[in-house]
Amino acid sequence: MGDSSKVIGFRGFRWDAVPLEQYKSDPEAFEGVTRQVLLGSRPGEEPLNFELRYFEVEQGGYTTLERHRHAHAVVVLRGKGTVVLGAEETEIQAHDCVYIPPGVVHQLRADREATLGFLCVVDRLRDRAMPVRRDGSGM
Amino acid sequence: MGDSSKVIGFRGFRWDAVPLEQYKSDPEAFEGVTRQVLLGSRPGEEPLNFELRYFEVEQGGYTTLERHRHAHAVVVLRGKGTVVLGAEETEIQAHDCVYIPPGVVHQLRADREATLGFLCVVDRLRDRAMPVRRDGSGM
Repeated sequence: MGDSSKVIGFRGFRWDAVPLEQYKSDPEAFEGVTRQVLLGSRPGEEPLNFELRYFEVEQGGYTTLERHRHAHAVVVLRGKGTVVLGAEETEIQAHDCVYIPPGVVHQLRADREATLGFLCVVDRLRDRAMPVRRDGSGM
Repeated sequence: MGDSSKVIGFRGFRWDAVPLEQYKSDPEAFEGVTRQVLLGSRPGEEPLNFELRYFEVEQGGYTTLERHRHAHAVVVLRGKGTVVLGAEETEIQAHDCVYIPPGVVHQLRADREATLGFLCVVDRLRDRAMPVRRDGSGM
């Protein structure tokens, strides 16, 4: 394969040679979430200006309620759940797409009796997410 | 929903309010390919520095054999086929991931008795793709 081209094989929501990582270092703000960075963070992938990640939320789990200045593009790959966008909650399921603009408080929840797995694309260089309280204030 | 947040519903490999577009304007270099830009090109989506597109290649079809300076991140969403990366051809199927670095000649083919549908993420600002001949020279 020329240069650093590669095909990363899929096996049951794991990908070849892609480590399964902890979602975030603060375990208090989320529940049952794993992260896999599919592309954009390893040697040879420097030409990508974005990262393509896969997050999986186990049934009953949820990501951190947070906001940041960078935008998110999300595509659900597996299962179903709910996305919180500001004051709105919307049911999502496989292959639905979500746009999260800068500054919007958001959370993804696997609250519909299924695992929720989704791709999330972000800029490689981005600001750090800030967790927020349910009332929307900073934590 | 706060700001320009949105959930774009999925219905049978079409997405709500996302137009089905022609793949490219030169019909001679490809066969049976459609394009849907899921995120990154519409008003309100300016904070995204990338575009998230879904391409579908009907059985027997193929994308243009081409190269460019921008990189591609691909995730197969549907079916199976083959990806050409330089001199190599690799079978791909649903949820396999492909990295196409700058300058690598590539093509996606639905040559395995199925439709091939894939997400492809690229920089919003990028150079124009150059079609190449089978022998690798410019066209």
